[in-house]
Amino acid sequence: MIPRNHDHVCAIIWRDNALELLDQRLLPGEIRYQRLTTAVEVATAIRCMVVRGAPAIGITAAYGVVLAARNSYAKTQEHWQISMQEDLDQLAASRPTAVNLFWALRRMKRVIANTSGNPLERLLIEARAIHEEDIAANQCMGLLGAELLGERGAVLTHCNAGSLATGGYGTALGVIRAGYAAGLIERVYADETRPWLQGARLTAWELVQDRIPVTLLADGAAASLMRQGMIRWVIVGADRIAANGDAANKIGTYGLAVTARYHGVKLMVVAPASTVDLAVPNGTGIPIEQRAADELLNFNGYPVAPTGADGWNPSFDVTPAELIDAFVTERGVILKPDAAKIADMMGIENPAC
Amino acid sequence: MIPRNHDHVCAIIWRDNALELLDQRLLPGEIRYQRLTTAVEVATAIRCMVVRGAPAIGITAAYGVVLAARNSYAKTQEHWQISMQEDLDQLAASRPTAVNLFWALRRMKRVIANTSGNPLERLLIEARAIHEEDIAANQCMGLLGAELLGERGAVLTHCNAGSLATGGYGTALGVIRAGYAAGLIERVYADETRPWLQGARLTAWELVQDRIPVTLLADGAAASLMRQGMIRWVIVGADRIAANGDAANKIGTYGLAVTARYHGVKLMVVAPASTVDLAVPNGTGIPIEQRAADELLNFNGYPVAPTGADGWNPSFDVTPAELIDAFVTERGVILKPDAAKIADMMGIENPAC
Repeated sequence: MIPRNHDHVCAIIWRDNALELLDQRLLPGEIRYQRLTTAVEVATAIRCMVVRGAPAIGITAAYGVVLAARNSYAKTQEHWQISMQEDLDQLAASRPTAVNLFWALRRMKRVIANTSGNPLERLLIEARAIHEEDIAANQCMGLLGAELLGERGAVLTHCNAGSLATGGYGTALGVIRAGYAAGLIERVYADETRPWLQGARLTAWELVQDRIPVTLLADGAAASLMRQGMIRWVIVGADRIAANGDAANKIGTYGLAVTARYHGVKLMVVAPASTVDLAVPNGTGIPIEQRAADELLNFNGYPVAPTGADGWNPSFDVTPAELIDAFVTERGVILKPDAAKIADMMGIENPAC
Repeated sequence: MIPRNHDHVCAIIWRDNALELLDQRLLPGEIRYQRLTTAVEVATAIRCMVVRGAPAIGITAAYGVVLAARNSYAKTQEHWQISMQEDLDQLAASRPTAVNLFWALRRMKRVIANTSGNPLERLLIEARAIHEEDIAANQCMGLLGAELLGERGAVLTHCNAGSLATGGYGTALGVIRAGYAAGLIERVYADETRPWLQGARLTAWELVQDRIPVTLLADGAAASLMRQGMIRWVIVGADRIAANGDAANKIGTYGLAVTARYHGVKLMVVAPASTVDLAVPNGTGIPIEQRAADELLNFNGYPVAPTGADGWNPSFDVTPAELIDAFVTERGVILKPDAAKIADMMGIENPAC
């Protein structure tokens, strides 16, 4: 049985003083949780993509801080804040692009700075708050995004921005879930999303469980889908959004954005406010993780390319704000995002729902 | 040892009264030839993608006709033309999109219609002529296409339009080979080309053997490559070209064409005149093969998607002529192809070189 919460899969669970992560590399073939008790294990799990998706990485790192503090406090009740610094650095270095990681670490560090005595309970409360707030934000974004969909039709998504990529429910898949429930979405086309196949392995898996009709396609087939008028929206998540609205997301998103605009298909980016990085003026400042060429040259340990071939494997790309029709956060919807609209939205303290 | 001819790999060999095909499904891991002695075996090999690539399919079918005629003549010296009809139908039904198949069958049928007595020698001469003319056409297109490249830079190709897809040397890879030899190409970026991975398995394999620097990328990464100014040309083959210049090619080509135009990257389509189908006024008339969803849902027998997910798996897409900057055939180069220019070119009898 897969643990569920609010009727969605739980990929991140705090249980019996440890962090349990659904190993997403094994899906859809196998449901197996890793049980982690140190921050170094958590950093490794993030780096190796046991868990992935910007909001999920942030939540996971927050629980990683709880483990770091507990272990540090067990060693030294006096200098635990200092002795856990290396663990915090390891968590921060696990993956570079998703800004939610750094946002979550900042929240946890604020609690650390204001805590004396045993920090376990206070940090656990904060990590759980980050987790629960993310689920609530997703449900809010789902409603806000679904309102934009217009008449009933099919949509396309890329990678996985669902329960598995977040605290639960999902960002892009949250909108899709809410839109399907409202009768506005008849079918979801899912890019398989090379090289990790998150679309095939994770998005299709989530949608099949929710009995939402899902059709996989090769990433290269998306333009044909649009030309044939088969979809009305492309709906994706984001890993970091610059102050001007430029959005980093899984490699392939930018090409979808260009082809969507060419065909008059609209692009919706769905991400919590924690994904916005006001310190980065535009997309050129977002660090793009380059992963090993091996992810392209091999499949499941089987070589698919000859020895001697090289690989170019950026994990993300940046979609410029001018190609984004709607940016949905839990603080509200921005149509045609730009720096001024984003600054206004980030000034709002309360969620829109 | 891999058999080579004119310094390129031979994927199609007539030897000892049989057709030998390099099984391209096993590359790059294994070099194994299938030995075929009946037209039904040849049709199966085409359908199952032992051999693929529009010109290679045409050449293979021509040799398939030789086998059909030989076997038919062995059964009935009187009615061999009639008795081989079913074999011809099977060859024609093997794959629908590449028009070179039907073109080659028409050439072979003309010889059949004018032959009495044992047809083997005359048909073999015709099949060999189709094969040798294709190699010569490729070498001619290589020179013509390389002249268009301009200053030295990197190029992107999609799928495999090399020795393996043709009689030898290649169409798009022919231009790349000639361009590299002339010092105009410094590196080839190759889309891995899902779902069959012809870019990883075949194009990279050919280029590594020729010591041409090759870098693989996920299909979804091509738009980023263009945005970063890393390539100057996209160079691809074609499976059928309509009278107005609309070009069917491997799924993913159309999306590349849209993103190339957006970034000011030029698109070159390289294909022999036998790829032009004047009977089809524009791309909407080109039949697009739909292949099994299984090609997306499984990888090498390993399921990558959950039970219950559907798949949309068109094998080709159509790039409208207005997105093509140059169309290179052995009869010459057409810039900004349209119906009038293509009609003019098809009126030319002799190759340009």
